[in-house]
Amino acid sequence: MSELRQDIATKQWVIIAKERAKRPHQFIQRQERVAEPEYSPACPFCPGNESQTPPEAFAFRESGTAPNTPGWRVRVVPNKFAALSPGEQVIVTHPEIFTTINGIGGHEVIIESPIHNQTCATLPYEAVEEVIKAALARFRAFSSDSKCGFVAIFRNNGKGAGTSLIHPHSQIIATPIVPTHVRQEIEEARRFYDDRIQCVYCESLARELEADERIVLNTDGYVVLVPFAARMPYEMRILPKDHNPTFANALPDDIHEFAFVLKEALHLLYRAVDNPDYNLVMHNAPLRDSCQDYFHWHVEILPRLTTPAGFELGTGIYINTSVPEEIAQYLRGMCQS
Amino acid sequence: MSELRQDIATKQWVIIAKERAKRPHQFIQRQERVAEPEYSPACPFCPGNESQTPPEAFAFRESGTAPNTPGWRVRVVPNKFAALSPGEQVIVTHPEIFTTINGIGGHEVIIESPIHNQTCATLPYEAVEEVIKAALARFRAFSSDSKCGFVAIFRNNGKGAGTSLIHPHSQIIATPIVPTHVRQEIEEARRFYDDRIQCVYCESLARELEADERIVLNTDGYVVLVPFAARMPYEMRILPKDHNPTFANALPDDIHEFAFVLKEALHLLYRAVDNPDYNLVMHNAPLRDSCQDYFHWHVEILPRLTTPAGFELGTGIYINTSVPEEIAQYLRGMCQS
Repeated sequence: MSELRQDIATKQWVIIAKERAKRPHQFIQRQERVAEPEYSPACPFCPGNESQTPPEAFAFRESGTAPNTPGWRVRVVPNKFAALSPGEQVIVTHPEIFTTINGIGGHEVIIESPIHNQTCATLPYEAVEEVIKAALARFRAFSSDSKCGFVAIFRNNGKGAGTSLIHPHSQIIATPIVPTHVRQEIEEARRFYDDRIQCVYCESLARELEADERIVLNTDGYVVLVPFAARMPYEMRILPKDHNPTFANALPDDIHEFAFVLKEALHLLYRAVDNPDYNLVMHNAPLRDSCQDYFHWHVEILPRLTTPAGFELGTGIYINTSVPEEIAQYLRGMCQS
Repeated sequence: MSELRQDIATKQWVIIAKERAKRPHQFIQRQERVAEPEYSPACPFCPGNESQTPPEAFAFRESGTAPNTPGWRVRVVPNKFAALSPGEQVIVTHPEIFTTINGIGGHEVIIESPIHNQTCATLPYEAVEEVIKAALARFRAFSSDSKCGFVAIFRNNGKGAGTSLIHPHSQIIATPIVPTHVRQEIEEARRFYDDRIQCVYCESLARELEADERIVLNTDGYVVLVPFAARMPYEMRILPKDHNPTFANALPDDIHEFAFVLKEALHLLYRAVDNPDYNLVMHNAPLRDSCQDYFHWHVEILPRLTTPAGFELGTGIYINTSVPEEIAQYLRGMCQS
């Protein structure tokens, strides 16, 4: 019989379809892939094509090189097809029931490497660290804009995860409101705190380390685990051990170790299921609601090996056709190999 | 500049990316399709293969034909790979923070036609009406089981919408709990009611009919519209004009007209974007929480023409690259042709 599991933090339920569950290695999708070159003349993110993007907002580049020319290692540019853009004033309207806000905010692309066919999983740690530093710099820049309420940092890897460009990149979107989904996540964390005077993520981490069934990686400052109520095969969560509601407060040492852990987690996924499509999402507290005692930043890695369908869309309950403990064990074994 | 819109009922925000929006006809995906035959010997849902499914729970069949043999027009069987199954007792456990429930409930497939290559959009009204009647019969059967808390009725059309079998079918899953997502939807409806002593869906319907910008179809008892805060291109909602928290209460006349409206809406989508992949989800009140005054059953049609990515997964905010009013106008024009 299958099992329903509830995520203690979000109250979201998930169905672990144990009987129809595949073995960890059965999720490898041998899709026909076109081998990409290191440099693609048509790619707007490749060096030499800097004029094809809006002017850069941030870059790590070789000394002596000019903005918007080659010589960068990481480059942040506004999204050419921005979902939200900087502006003077947030304007809310609500004639009758039709509430709208003008599309104020920001939408930037972090080009993670000058090399066209790299991915975060195969970049050296030092390069991943610079990507994180660039993301943090832009996160902090948006944080100081009083028109922004929330900053989403995410990565779409592969076509099935919604990306259109192969060249390795992450994205940042700053929204004028706090998304309802985020509010709900925070509300659940606050409720847990009110009941127990304890952060739900700190408590989960302690119980997970104790159970030691779903831990993939355990370093001084971070834990990578397969969530107890994982929604999909190979879902992973990266949790910092120190309680902190937002990554915006990260210190250089935190960043250094986080780069190592992030790259390890992505590389494990890359090896385990042959560079699958996935989404990576950072969860941070909203900008003007510090959630100091009860929210705890973390990263979700969501592989797109299965397709959410009507049941998932209608109920929010995912049917996961893998057993979290088996996946964790498989990945842990891979760490040691 | 793009626009954020909030769904008054769910408080979910959506971004209408007006500037990057495609025109309605640009969503047609000319994918290579293998023409399916009317009968496929290998298909477990085709007549003659009844023994390949678990025994039927319900059927409309020609008089004189025996259960689990050909002669049926609509056939309901338990899902061979059921996510949830009937059982004696709901057992909840919560050692530490790890809450689970055994996989009690039900998971059935409604085989909508004996003809392998039909779809709900191309079936005659009478056939769609029998599909709805079969769904309703099973909905009512699950409703009388005190171990069930909620019944999800949905349809996955096409591979991109998560289906593995082409033969036209819908699904019913009965869950022992009320999904958190459903609770949130209901909580928002209750809050609106508490503020205004008015059903939020009744109010929306009145304002939508007044605005007349997003209405696709308007019959005596139903309205088909593109939601003001549609999350994806060609999203449609079917709303009954009479306030009723659940379809379980539907009378024969309601069903008759609903069959007409449902088939019309699906046929419009079929013609407009060339039989796209889509999910269809019914939204009904939970079984043991009547929500009498404030919830209002409805149907959501969610075409999978775009891919939700990290931003959607992390924030719940969809980036919709179409303008709801344009899509509605395009579909309305098609109604008259």
